[in-house]
Amino acid sequence: MDSITLAVDAMGGYNAPRDVVAAVAAASRQGSGDVFFLLVGDEVRLSDLLYEFGHNPERISVIHAPHYIGLGEPAQQALERKTDSSLEIACELVANGEADGLVSAGHPGAAILCARKYFQPLPGISRVALASVYPTPRVRGTDRLGLILDVGATLRASAEDLQNFALMGSAYARLVKGLERPRVALLSNSREARIGPPEVVEAYELLREDKRLNFYGNIEGDEIPRGDYDVIVCEGFVGDVALKLLEGTGEAAFELARSAYDKHLAWKTGLKLLSGGLKKLKTAIDFEEYGGAPLLGLDRVVIVAHPKSGKKAIGNSLKLAIKNIRARLPEQIAQDIAGAEIEGE
Amino acid sequence: MDSITLAVDAMGGYNAPRDVVAAVAAASRQGSGDVFFLLVGDEVRLSDLLYEFGHNPERISVIHAPHYIGLGEPAQQALERKTDSSLEIACELVANGEADGLVSAGHPGAAILCARKYFQPLPGISRVALASVYPTPRVRGTDRLGLILDVGATLRASAEDLQNFALMGSAYARLVKGLERPRVALLSNSREARIGPPEVVEAYELLREDKRLNFYGNIEGDEIPRGDYDVIVCEGFVGDVALKLLEGTGEAAFELARSAYDKHLAWKTGLKLLSGGLKKLKTAIDFEEYGGAPLLGLDRVVIVAHPKSGKKAIGNSLKLAIKNIRARLPEQIAQDIAGAEIEGE
Repeated sequence: MDSITLAVDAMGGYNAPRDVVAAVAAASRQGSGDVFFLLVGDEVRLSDLLYEFGHNPERISVIHAPHYIGLGEPAQQALERKTDSSLEIACELVANGEADGLVSAGHPGAAILCARKYFQPLPGISRVALASVYPTPRVRGTDRLGLILDVGATLRASAEDLQNFALMGSAYARLVKGLERPRVALLSNSREARIGPPEVVEAYELLREDKRLNFYGNIEGDEIPRGDYDVIVCEGFVGDVALKLLEGTGEAAFELARSAYDKHLAWKTGLKLLSGGLKKLKTAIDFEEYGGAPLLGLDRVVIVAHPKSGKKAIGNSLKLAIKNIRARLPEQIAQDIAGAEIEGE
Repeated sequence: MDSITLAVDAMGGYNAPRDVVAAVAAASRQGSGDVFFLLVGDEVRLSDLLYEFGHNPERISVIHAPHYIGLGEPAQQALERKTDSSLEIACELVANGEADGLVSAGHPGAAILCARKYFQPLPGISRVALASVYPTPRVRGTDRLGLILDVGATLRASAEDLQNFALMGSAYARLVKGLERPRVALLSNSREARIGPPEVVEAYELLREDKRLNFYGNIEGDEIPRGDYDVIVCEGFVGDVALKLLEGTGEAAFELARSAYDKHLAWKTGLKLLSGGLKKLKTAIDFEEYGGAPLLGLDRVVIVAHPKSGKKAIGNSLKLAIKNIRARLPEQIAQDIAGAEIEGE
């Protein structure tokens, strides 16, 4: 394959630009020598940071952007006012072919809006979806990660949007989990197909009749963490709430556990013996491990990293972007959507 | 106060009628002697079960109902076909004043539909809400329970519905948590008031300007388990998913923990020492502890218990119903909604 060039919004996220530059600098010293990075942002600051961190100058170019979108700004207005933000210039680089994909840990809403402005929707796709992975107790395919989409790009989705999400998620799970026929489930308030908001009831019928999908039916919220399905489909509003709730529950459970365990000596000792295991468990449910969320439905690779991402999470987002570019993810999804029926199990 | 009579749908739930009768039989031997129970269902079976369990016959009457609504039936059609189901006869008993409130662990959708048919909405309330409590790490008021509504009675809610849910939830939290000014938060996909589905953005303004509420603003899903707010307001679809996800996460975390801890001797020993603490933690996140969910917005007390409820959960639902009847919950909510502004902190 040809070399790969990744555009990185260096100014996006709570830890930008320091952690973004640190991650790109580290990536430039590792991995495949045919991957190049365009670091977009304040030229002086980025050059200073690159000077501070060890890096391979042959694999990083700094592209100046005089402005950036703040995390607290209203996305639409900020994009209209600042046409030369680091995010927008990074998108331009991808749109005109100077880069093959984009990573941003900045304002997620702005990243989605800007990507929709610069990149083309895949044939048959009218609404994009942000797909997120989360840890489950069940190994399926190559890992124990579940995929849920949409998690915030399309707040309210029609039945047809949900069907498109199912197809895109299925194509993505085939790629990242190495499963031939990923199990797809539709999130609802009942396992009963006739119950639920009208668009979900209608989507059930579309998914059931779609021969390109391996559709298992409706699931309720308690099945999200179990990991019995590879792709969980929902509108963006409920997906966003569910994903953040999953993140928050881990922390709350640890706090509950600590307050319970402080009281008894035996429990305290037990907790001490377990500390290695707890650290391992924390790693398993740590979202920093899994990089960013791919924005699906456009003709380019876009990774929306969590704004809280540190160096490690950004590094994982870069790896994910490179993997998706190498696998030609957009073409793959377009093929899968246009493609023939999948074979029975 | 006068004596209290509770109508109980004895045929509702996975463990009905056995566990329902067991819970009512136990309640008849305990607690206040001025509480009476009308057990509605198959007369012969209920009498046999009462004979099997020790009970106080002066405080239990069996009311025959020839049919019942199955958990897998479509609620609307089943109610139309079986006009003499145990659920409907229990509702009739409450509507005509023979009982003061209702508990059912049967088909939740059918219970809500049937309650809306027989009971009157409170003044100013157009949509009912199911309010559920869940454990958090934070003690506020008398306990560490958070309240979230709606969790499934009104799948899609308008801004005005969400405002009504906030007022009803606030009145309920005052009653059950003993807080003068419960903290209210609105669930959205952003802390930013301008972001979110249109009705949520509009609801933010209504809540902010409502002087009857102690409104803290929008929260995201990760704050649900933290317990910093007493009342979390959302539409029923997302509330249902969130609540079930909370239930499911506990189980999945235990499974993840077990699989991680099986590997090392030190971890195994630690886990053994912790077993008492784990049991305590399991109790803290066990939904059986908290009884059923009150249906708010009608002029009668209705408790919708989880269909999986066993004897203990049913018993807690009976206690909750009795508490709510004694506190004249519907009148209390109506007063609060009609009431004056609350004082500043």
